[in-house]
Amino acid sequence: MSLFNLSGKAARSPLLCSAPFRSLATTAAAAPSKKAPTAVVLMNLGGPKDLDAVHPFLLNLFSDGDLIPIPFQKYSAKFIAARRTPKIQTQYAQIGGGSPIHAWTELQGKLLEERLDKLSPQTAPHKSYIAFRYASPLTPETVAQMQKDGISRAVALTLYPQYSCSTTGSSLNELWKTLKHMDPESKIAWSVVDRFPTHPGLVEVFAKHIEASLMTYPEHERKDVVLLFSAHSLPMDIVNRGDPYPQEVAATVQRVVERLGHSNPFRLIWQSQVGPRPWLGPKTDAVLEGYARLGKKNLLMIPIAFVSDHVETLFEVDIEYGELAKEHGITGFKRVESLNADPMFIDAMADIVATHIKRGKPVSTQMPLRCPLCTNEKCGESKQFFASQQL
Amino acid sequence: MSLFNLSGKAARSPLLCSAPFRSLATTAAAAPSKKAPTAVVLMNLGGPKDLDAVHPFLLNLFSDGDLIPIPFQKYSAKFIAARRTPKIQTQYAQIGGGSPIHAWTELQGKLLEERLDKLSPQTAPHKSYIAFRYASPLTPETVAQMQKDGISRAVALTLYPQYSCSTTGSSLNELWKTLKHMDPESKIAWSVVDRFPTHPGLVEVFAKHIEASLMTYPEHERKDVVLLFSAHSLPMDIVNRGDPYPQEVAATVQRVVERLGHSNPFRLIWQSQVGPRPWLGPKTDAVLEGYARLGKKNLLMIPIAFVSDHVETLFEVDIEYGELAKEHGITGFKRVESLNADPMFIDAMADIVATHIKRGKPVSTQMPLRCPLCTNEKCGESKQFFASQQL
Repeated sequence: MSLFNLSGKAARSPLLCSAPFRSLATTAAAAPSKKAPTAVVLMNLGGPKDLDAVHPFLLNLFSDGDLIPIPFQKYSAKFIAARRTPKIQTQYAQIGGGSPIHAWTELQGKLLEERLDKLSPQTAPHKSYIAFRYASPLTPETVAQMQKDGISRAVALTLYPQYSCSTTGSSLNELWKTLKHMDPESKIAWSVVDRFPTHPGLVEVFAKHIEASLMTYPEHERKDVVLLFSAHSLPMDIVNRGDPYPQEVAATVQRVVERLGHSNPFRLIWQSQVGPRPWLGPKTDAVLEGYARLGKKNLLMIPIAFVSDHVETLFEVDIEYGELAKEHGITGFKRVESLNADPMFIDAMADIVATHIKRGKPVSTQMPLRCPLCTNEKCGESKQFFASQQL
Repeated sequence: MSLFNLSGKAARSPLLCSAPFRSLATTAAAAPSKKAPTAVVLMNLGGPKDLDAVHPFLLNLFSDGDLIPIPFQKYSAKFIAARRTPKIQTQYAQIGGGSPIHAWTELQGKLLEERLDKLSPQTAPHKSYIAFRYASPLTPETVAQMQKDGISRAVALTLYPQYSCSTTGSSLNELWKTLKHMDPESKIAWSVVDRFPTHPGLVEVFAKHIEASLMTYPEHERKDVVLLFSAHSLPMDIVNRGDPYPQEVAATVQRVVERLGHSNPFRLIWQSQVGPRPWLGPKTDAVLEGYARLGKKNLLMIPIAFVSDHVETLFEVDIEYGELAKEHGITGFKRVESLNADPMFIDAMADIVATHIKRGKPVSTQMPLRCPLCTNEKCGESKQFFASQQL
């Protein structure tokens, strides 16, 4: 297991951070300012706060037909979630009993509010909300709170740098479905930040984290460290449908490597494949074994498609792949620190949102284009809904 | 079929170009200058000059274990090449009876010589050679000619912008194997330009060709044209072995789209899949059918991983996909002009080579890193050979 601190003092958990932030509930109870706030809704997958939350989290996940379309979804989801809960609980037990993603996202939101108020005073105050896809606060809870707060203008901000129909797409479909029921008169005007794979601030913070990690290797070995950019894989049927994610992840990797001045050799690899279906590779575990066989001792893992720590970084990379690397004699297996609430990352996000607001368009040029082999009618309607918002 | 001229006067065939260029044979016969030239060896796949050359071309192609490892390669290659020759001859018959890739490459080389002599006078004169992988001039012919010309310094320049073990990798393995036999005392010092996926000049020329094509659409439809960046696909076992090609192709696409200011929606798609093995998708033909179903009328094809016209652009895209598009009611199916001998492309290549020479290193940082699941020992030896060249 390769847990290390970049600065030697950065906290592993947001709960230990000194920056003040209030819970969503407390914020909601505060007296509203005279000018209605501009809402910034942070969308991410979410994670179980504690071991009891694992089952409902998995149930939500396996119920998502945009992520995993399975026959008799409502019933099969219950069966699969129940069967997998004990195994997944064991994983969360090993990373402190729950996912830190809620705390990180809340902190990201609060820090973002402050930066945005300065960067875009004309749309201040900004108020952050969280809409997780599989854990509380779920989209309906969030929309209810926004209505209570009198929101009339909202930015849906994905926290996935690269767009996939399984992640940002699913979150937007859920938001569209929720709004159809909860805001039929469209009292809230929405715009969407749906991707930011090569934003210079994002690239910079990834590069800085890599540079900091490289410094922890002995100087004479530093140039030979192989950078392994590891992203959550996609099933090949989703790739072959034309999901834009693999292309965008690759673009992030290229930009980061260029920003590093091609200091080290690298590969883009894919993790977290499950089940019998073919998934996009090369698979992270096979890559570790392969590079061990080719005599590589120093491998630096860079989670390039997640911004916050959660089970895929803390358990899968640090523990599972860490142990696999150790077994194969890879003595220099390390992982760069996730972006979490790094001020540089917050600055990047603030710039992304402020630029988006200034641009005054509801969606990106790319968003309305469905995947060439898409058969999910929800995608068509949801894209149409957001693209036709009047700001 | 969508053949159109970008400028209204640009020639479809290099044979019609007015720029003077001499054949390799003529050049070789010229008296050598006092200072030995710096060789620039343009590597590409090559293509049959005429219909009689189709069989030997296919035989070379199916004999390449780095491209298509098949059991009993020597014998199966003969069988497969003989069986496929008539079908492939029909394809070449439809594009003028042969591939223009030799003429284009020769012209690229000659124009590059002129530019390089100006850009890098200290290494002038520069002399271009061609080393095709499957058609004459093959690597051994070229090396023999270089030895006759007294070459002591050579740059192996791939014409594939993005590196794949199947293309540039195969060419380099062939060059290494040839040199082992033909230049055992290493009288020629080699360096390698192994990839240039995001070179600004390359990005610029792709963007300019796209902009020119977009101008041929009616103004009110222009913004809705879907840009389809189509690259030759790879079998999934090569992708899953860790071949860098999909990542680099994706990087080129991203940079071009950004250079265009995200003017149009786009997808990266993959063409030319053959045989029963799974290949990387989405497949170009399925994409055309999919977008027809989703009501798209204007699709602009951009061959993003080839620089010269050959059967994959002239037959497969223009004729095969063109007919498919027509059948499905896609009225605005077009293809951007290939880079061929566009002066902007030549300038880009000259900059790439001049910068490479100035850098003074035999290979890129990335080249020595084998694919994580590589089991081809030739790759290890060939990479080691080029990486340890003394310049």
